[in-house]
Amino acid sequence: MAESGITPRQTDYSQWYLDVIQAAELSDYSPVKGSMVLRPHGFAIWDLMRTGLDQRFQATGHVNAYFPLLIPVSFLSKEAEHVEGFAKECAVVTHHRLRAAVGGGVEPDPTAKLEEPLVIRPTSETIIWHMYGKWIQSHRDLPILINQWANVVRWEMKTRPFLRTSEFLWQEGHTAHATRAEAVEEAERMLRVYTDFAQKEMAMPVIPGTKSASERFAGAVDTLCIEAMMQNGWALQAGTSHFLGQNFAKAFDVTFTGESGVREHVWATSWGVSTRLVGALIMTHSDDTGLVLPPRLAPIQVVITPMWKGDGEKAAAVAFAEAAAARLVGLRVRVDTRDQMKPGAKYFEWERKGVPLRLEIGPRDMAANSVFAAPRTGGGKFAIVVDDDFATTVRAKLDEIQALLYQRAEARLAERTAPVQNYEELKAKLDGGGFFLANWCDDAANEATIKEETRATIRCYPLDGQTPDGPCFYSGRPATHVALFARAY
Amino acid sequence: MAESGITPRQTDYSQWYLDVIQAAELSDYSPVKGSMVLRPHGFAIWDLMRTGLDQRFQATGHVNAYFPLLIPVSFLSKEAEHVEGFAKECAVVTHHRLRAAVGGGVEPDPTAKLEEPLVIRPTSETIIWHMYGKWIQSHRDLPILINQWANVVRWEMKTRPFLRTSEFLWQEGHTAHATRAEAVEEAERMLRVYTDFAQKEMAMPVIPGTKSASERFAGAVDTLCIEAMMQNGWALQAGTSHFLGQNFAKAFDVTFTGESGVREHVWATSWGVSTRLVGALIMTHSDDTGLVLPPRLAPIQVVITPMWKGDGEKAAAVAFAEAAAARLVGLRVRVDTRDQMKPGAKYFEWERKGVPLRLEIGPRDMAANSVFAAPRTGGGKFAIVVDDDFATTVRAKLDEIQALLYQRAEARLAERTAPVQNYEELKAKLDGGGFFLANWCDDAANEATIKEETRATIRCYPLDGQTPDGPCFYSGRPATHVALFARAY
Repeated sequence: MAESGITPRQTDYSQWYLDVIQAAELSDYSPVKGSMVLRPHGFAIWDLMRTGLDQRFQATGHVNAYFPLLIPVSFLSKEAEHVEGFAKECAVVTHHRLRAAVGGGVEPDPTAKLEEPLVIRPTSETIIWHMYGKWIQSHRDLPILINQWANVVRWEMKTRPFLRTSEFLWQEGHTAHATRAEAVEEAERMLRVYTDFAQKEMAMPVIPGTKSASERFAGAVDTLCIEAMMQNGWALQAGTSHFLGQNFAKAFDVTFTGESGVREHVWATSWGVSTRLVGALIMTHSDDTGLVLPPRLAPIQVVITPMWKGDGEKAAAVAFAEAAAARLVGLRVRVDTRDQMKPGAKYFEWERKGVPLRLEIGPRDMAANSVFAAPRTGGGKFAIVVDDDFATTVRAKLDEIQALLYQRAEARLAERTAPVQNYEELKAKLDGGGFFLANWCDDAANEATIKEETRATIRCYPLDGQTPDGPCFYSGRPATHVALFARAY
Repeated sequence: MAESGITPRQTDYSQWYLDVIQAAELSDYSPVKGSMVLRPHGFAIWDLMRTGLDQRFQATGHVNAYFPLLIPVSFLSKEAEHVEGFAKECAVVTHHRLRAAVGGGVEPDPTAKLEEPLVIRPTSETIIWHMYGKWIQSHRDLPILINQWANVVRWEMKTRPFLRTSEFLWQEGHTAHATRAEAVEEAERMLRVYTDFAQKEMAMPVIPGTKSASERFAGAVDTLCIEAMMQNGWALQAGTSHFLGQNFAKAFDVTFTGESGVREHVWATSWGVSTRLVGALIMTHSDDTGLVLPPRLAPIQVVITPMWKGDGEKAAAVAFAEAAAARLVGLRVRVDTRDQMKPGAKYFEWERKGVPLRLEIGPRDMAANSVFAAPRTGGGKFAIVVDDDFATTVRAKLDEIQALLYQRAEARLAERTAPVQNYEELKAKLDGGGFFLANWCDDAANEATIKEETRATIRCYPLDGQTPDGPCFYSGRPATHVALFARAY
């Protein structure tokens, strides 16, 4: 472990990830196995993600609503494939009361056993489509474009902060449409929204694509996704958008009277992203010193660290810092006025926490009416005069940092994405990490074999318009797709 | 039932409340007993409340975080009084997996029974104080000023939308302090924040006070509250702020090393408001036509309804309406361009949904470059010219509506709050509704008797500085407090 308390990425990438989270105080383990505490700094990142996404959802005509946490178990069984995918590792509520236990403590009261057990939502399609059945009568009730911000629970034995936890926070959009074409268009639109969010806010390039049948959402006709590349070359699924066809409408018998007067089943989509995006953000930009945040998602974008010797100098230094901060209207700025902490220790803390831009203020800076700027992304420090151009200069620097982070991630993605001609080549290259493109003949059994032998999966069939230029790299049969293989979180 | 589909308040106040909710599409019943669906219009009101509260929390130095939904049952037993209050009507998770049931469907898998049952949080003191125990070592770690926006579950047999549901949304602040004085100050500060929010955003006057011992939060040393008067004269507890003393710090052994080097237990507060505020809002302002919303919490503040005859006129009418809307920057405006719906039906819908200001546009209004304004609070319609003063005029009108709603509610509160000299007088007056102030000698047994005989409770001991001016109205003993009695939701 380095002086920073953070294991270098080269030594142990998994441990580095945990160390960064710990050092930046993003999350903590809870006494309930698999549940995570989102500490203020980690939650604030998620809250900024929420804001950025919610603006995009509203701009595309969606509204928020809230549906119940608890779902009757019988609902899960109504859609045949959905039950396979989601009715397994669920938190099951069986009692509604506790009683005093013999010998102290409390225990479930046997007289308060529920007639029908309830599950904590692993996802809300079933309860929402039950309600849509009440709300949808005619074509005038369509489309319904609802999103929900919520917590969900999927019991996990092996967990990792942000990436895989039993409880997590997410948003789930659930839309209902009169036609198949409209629903398909909606699923595609929301994938573009996620792509735009990942690129512009997270500074994270992604590969949009469709899932193979075996990686599809349980109950979907088609699953669209965006896949991002982490620094170790592994893939992370950063968002999914599902075209559900009429599967849930049929399971919950949701029909509408069309303009022609005929009753038809409604067409559906659902789409979601979760707190695992915080994990993706960490593994896209951070370094061996700690967290690195793109300015647009940084809870603190600028930290100002005045220096002083003795109490006599403090007032003037703090006043200068506060005056500089007051010029940065609309930015998220912190002035660090803590006593009993040396400047070096402060720099170290804000670096670990990923603050994009630090403005140091010493006596000489004050004399020159300037601050000394240190971008978290490196590249040397420089002075900025605190005049009428100050805010413009700081904003431009933040934009530059945002752009630089995207460029670095994009370069890595380009550098580490390569075609493979045959299975041996894939197997040889996988340990080094990266995305591998192969001509592929869609076949669930072959896919399963590859997964078992290599731990790599088809992340998606990219939507970039590429077509196979030869036979399947695995079976030699005529190829149906270009498939993106990678190991994934 | 009136033409509006809404039962008049005079006929049946409870039914009126349910009708208003239904007509405004605020919420709907869910298939899980006691759980509520927040429909988009209802959720949007809560979301605006959230924004208004969150700004105030941040302005007073608080940050948001997120703690686990599931709590080990043993945690609830750690604080003796807390377990009495909260370990009873809880949703208990006993299994983490379902399996296929014989004869179809799914059932809890007996092989996946949890070693220790978990409860869905009814409130988060226990899990949060467990975490604070990990985070607090020295006085430099204090204060901790954390708030959480979350869902909680308290099993209810008899439910009413927004006011009493098994699952509800809320915020819960949990703070940790080095001294008793600081914690007391925090609890008082947050009561002032709630008071300010109720008055300025909800246009709802409240009575701040302290709870009697029997109405206190389970585990608190002192519970502060704000009580609002609904239109029928009943009270509604709109927010609580608890001084928890060292009770939770002792239960979870959370100590810190003070500047003197001695280890001491930490001092605590918690404070919360919930979606029941939406119920309070409805019952403070709405009328027999439907929902009435104060502009600051109205998801749509202004609806613009252009009129046209035949498609030939539509384009010009809509363009005029859109141009007017474009001037109202920063306001929440909807232009209603729906076809196949007569103006009267549109007016009726937006009135039921509580939109504060409707701007009608007919051919004559367009000719005069004006709109015809109809405030939801009545008082006659009037023209507003669509010129450079348009936005200012509309904003002023919304401010006037906001102020008017507060004045009306304040007048009702003043009119229906009265002193009572003896118990007979209280009993005689209670059926008419209202708040009753009485000299009172604190006594839990007498309080219980009064509650049983009259269904009235001590809502609070108001903080307005009044002191008893005679003996206890019930026992004749020397009075300790002035108590506010009322029937309550």
